[in-house]
Amino acid sequence: MTLTEEDVKRSLQLALDKGAEIGIPISVAITDAAGHLLGFSRHVGAEIVSITLAQDKAYTAAVNRISTAELGKLCQPGAELYGLQHNLGGRMVIFGGGIPIRGTDGVLIGAIGVSGGTVEQDIACALAALDSLPN
Amino acid sequence: MTLTEEDVKRSLQLALDKGAEIGIPISVAITDAAGHLLGFSRHVGAEIVSITLAQDKAYTAAVNRISTAELGKLCQPGAELYGLQHNLGGRMVIFGGGIPIRGTDGVLIGAIGVSGGTVEQDIACALAALDSLPN
Amino acid sequence: MTLTEEDVKRSLQLALDKGAEIGIPISVAITDAAGHLLGFSRHVGAEIVSITLAQDKAYTAAVNRISTAELGKLCQPGAELYGLQHNLGGRMVIFGGGIPIRGTDGVLIGAIGVSGGTVEQDIACALAALDSLPN
Amino acid sequence: MTLTEEDVKRSLQLALDKGAEIGIPISVAITDAAGHLLGFSRHVGAEIVSITLAQDKAYTAAVNRISTAELGKLCQPGAELYGLQHNLGGRMVIFGGGIPIRGTDGVLIGAIGVSGGTVEQDIACALAALDSLPN
Repeated sequence: MTLTEEDVKRSLQLALDKGAEIGIPISVAITDAAGHLLGFSRHVGAEIVSITLAQDKAYTAAVNRISTAELGKLCQPGAELYGLQHNLGGRMVIFGGGIPIRGTDGVLIGAIGVSGGTVEQDIACALAALDSLPN
Repeated sequence: MTLTEEDVKRSLQLALDKGAEIGIPISVAITDAAGHLLGFSRHVGAEIVSITLAQDKAYTAAVNRISTAELGKLCQPGAELYGLQHNLGGRMVIFGGGIPIRGTDGVLIGAIGVSGGTVEQDIACALAALDSLPN
Repeated sequence: MTLTEEDVKRSLQLALDKGAEIGIPISVAITDAAGHLLGFSRHVGAEIVSITLAQDKAYTAAVNRISTAELGKLCQPGAELYGLQHNLGGRMVIFGGGIPIRGTDGVLIGAIGVSGGTVEQDIACALAALDSLPN
Repeated sequence: MTLTEEDVKRSLQLALDKGAEIGIPISVAITDAAGHLLGFSRHVGAEIVSITLAQDKAYTAAVNRISTAELGKLCQPGAELYGLQHNLGGRMVIFGGGIPIRGTDGVLIGAIGVSGGTVEQDIACALAALDSLPN
């Protein structure tokens, strides 16, 4: 089971729509299960840093198979994976907005990453997109 | 004059459609005039290297305000800009497939980059997308 | 005293077998005393991030001559080596799973790194491999 | 169709055996179709640079879907892809020793990279490994 081009387009748009609805310009990225970018979209006016963060959030969620919010708990000082945020060439994002995408059989098929708003807003946009996917 | 979200979506799709028409899976990227990514799309099955090359072709075309094919001529051994390909962190792509996008007044408003086929095929896909833009 | 190719093959397999036994797909890497990779193996399906982490855990354990779990204690905020995790190009891994390999005379001859499970699981896999080595 | 762990182990060993037969210590790497490392092995004594080159040769062959020897012809000054060798973070290797692995249906399933000898020797070792694979 893999993400289709139609899945990717629809999901990107749903995330953008959610961002527009709550009034925050965002970037959104979707990768395949290997962490390679499938699609990306940005509101005109979304902050520049969100371009890289959205992609790296999706990458982080794909290659670790866990949401960046959950990963962040494990990376606090004293916690099990503290320090991971400094590895992998600095691409590990450890605050919310990156979420794995799983097929109906539970197997990882990709990940989505959103950046541009607060963490809560980014997660809301990512979840709006996930609702349309086959997980 | 700037690229709208609608411009970006339509252009990405036109490039993908052209790739499908000529039977080659591609990646396509569009940046704004600052070289920052606005949108990206990839055919399922496009080669992995095309993800980075499409983005860096668009980036190269935007920040140099010249197509990557034209830039390549200037970067051959002995030519005026020979060596530029080693600068900018290796993001300068000096073969065809990256093209600046200009508004009706001739001012740069972004760039498009396509990768996945031969250079000739990549350029054909980029031009198909440009046809729909206000230049 | 150095690791032989036979040592490396047998150790990689023992770590993979331990991962299979506890039901977690892993990556495992073995370096020589200089921190240079001797061998690497990955379960089909081990998470992508484990490829780099296993190698960097072994590297960290070899070049610091201490397990990554022990090093992690020294790198907590306020501890003696806090900050080391940001050096060496981000290759210093400071959570468990990287263990030095010493010969019967106690001299460092290499290191092993495992990634893919919890820290506890990674360490268990590394120790299973070490049991077969001449230390 | 994908490479199994048994495929990877057998292929690595066949490449090492070929290196031993012709008297040259080598490194050999095998990636999956996404360019992610599946296995790596090195003769004790193989030159240090071969560790990175073997991996990057396999990566280059996988992500471009072409042998590094063929790619090298396209990257000479004046040729179609001149400049590609400076892109992708310097991971593009454009001399022989990296070869794509295709399944019986012709679809890419991975790549192998060998380094340590002359280009001709590296290619011979890679081909010895490929003979055992389902292509």
